[in-house]
Amino acid sequence: MENKNINLVNGVKQIIAIASGKGGVGKSTTSVNVALALSNLGKRIGLLDADVYGPSIPKMLGLSGKPDTTKEGKKIIPKEKLGIQTMSIGFLVAEDTPMIWRGPMVMSAIKQLLYEVEWNDVDILVIDLPPGTGDTQLTLAQQVPISGSVIVSTPQDVALLDVKKGINMFKKVEIPVFGVIENMSYFLCPHCSSKTEIFSYGGAKKTANEYGIEFLGEIPLDTKIREHADKGEPLFNNKENIEYNEIYTKIANKLIDKLENQESATGPKINFID
Amino acid sequence: MENKNINLVNGVKQIIAIASGKGGVGKSTTSVNVALALSNLGKRIGLLDADVYGPSIPKMLGLSGKPDTTKEGKKIIPKEKLGIQTMSIGFLVAEDTPMIWRGPMVMSAIKQLLYEVEWNDVDILVIDLPPGTGDTQLTLAQQVPISGSVIVSTPQDVALLDVKKGINMFKKVEIPVFGVIENMSYFLCPHCSSKTEIFSYGGAKKTANEYGIEFLGEIPLDTKIREHADKGEPLFNNKENIEYNEIYTKIANKLIDKLENQESATGPKINFID
Repeated sequence: MENKNINLVNGVKQIIAIASGKGGVGKSTTSVNVALALSNLGKRIGLLDADVYGPSIPKMLGLSGKPDTTKEGKKIIPKEKLGIQTMSIGFLVAEDTPMIWRGPMVMSAIKQLLYEVEWNDVDILVIDLPPGTGDTQLTLAQQVPISGSVIVSTPQDVALLDVKKGINMFKKVEIPVFGVIENMSYFLCPHCSSKTEIFSYGGAKKTANEYGIEFLGEIPLDTKIREHADKGEPLFNNKENIEYNEIYTKIANKLIDKLENQESATGPKINFID
Repeated sequence: MENKNINLVNGVKQIIAIASGKGGVGKSTTSVNVALALSNLGKRIGLLDADVYGPSIPKMLGLSGKPDTTKEGKKIIPKEKLGIQTMSIGFLVAEDTPMIWRGPMVMSAIKQLLYEVEWNDVDILVIDLPPGTGDTQLTLAQQVPISGSVIVSTPQDVALLDVKKGINMFKKVEIPVFGVIENMSYFLCPHCSSKTEIFSYGGAKKTANEYGIEFLGEIPLDTKIREHADKGEPLFNNKENIEYNEIYTKIANKLIDKLENQESATGPKINFID
């Protein structure tokens, strides 16, 4: 691997990266709801949408318009929603404009979204990574002090190939994998309450076990989750959906544990299994 | 835009690129089944898996192992399955190895997969693009003679943002968009046969209309499609699933029409609506 050249982020204590080997597994939805669950547990949370090609966090949080800058105009002030400080390229470009950028431009954009932002006393910055193992992931891994990563996957075999790739990528760039989340784990028919394993079931847990990585939890495929994301009103803390608050809170608690254990560790941060 | 520098592909008459602004919408599954439908209509078909970071075509077609080379060892012979000539980076690297590559390496790999392959009298080469609007898409658009593109999307609002980006990207690189396919359009419960619009419904059609692009068809979300992909036995032409053969055949017929109309056109290939 190329060498690491880590730069701390002002105003941010710790960073968790939410990744997926494959797109469309619900990584952004999971990032938003986990961020809200962490915030609900008393942490000050930032959320950086690092998916320059397909930012979806603004839509999911119902945020739009340009962010303000500090008085001196030197830094961008993150937009705040439900107590979460949020930054996304989506605040800066029109919704339907494609970022037809090559690698170096993507890197430069992400560094600005991270370093030229006035994060205000953030305990945990959640970075919603773009899917895959390309330029963005490499740059962040080499230059940003990421405490650990979370891999989100759907359970079917074809998606699990990409989980394995994700685990191996983080291993190569020496970032601990805190755990794997299985999203769209099963579908409960709203008409007859029958369970259908549309995208199979349990595959992410099995893959996590195989690689000695913690399984953080499974989130069902539920029309409600998508509807809330489309409306810009995340599901978490919506009073009607207590069962989901519990699922995301369990995941958030496990992540806080991981971060706290890491702070007190003196040896290698994690032992990967080859 | 940077200038185009088009190089013809030996042994290939026409090229269709299957794209999606967002990952995980079923682009590869759709590519495989549309390729089979085109083949069933009498065309000689090639299928290039251009998703270097997450190749899933080998798994979906049940193909593995290294491909052969020509006698002189100069070119790779594509693997053949169900009459489709197939090439993928997945044939050349281990299943769980992440391609942690920066842009220029990706470009070089894709050019090899395209130009250093012994395509045998292919009428239509279907290229399964990686999701997004990054290096791969740019390079292919600038250097490969693509007749037209197809955008696959799920119907929910958040995914449609990325369809708009995709349409605008192809417009910028001057590749006609032949049409939009809505995948995972609705779910039929196998227990009670009720329809649930898990990812919403009809959004891709609406977006296509908005941009003056043809809507090619809608494919339901069905556990069977995923199961067949996981087993490496594509759904198309599976005798049990005649309704899907019809859906994919309709799409294939529309694409053949588009290609034939384009051949006879003397003016600009397509008029984009601003």
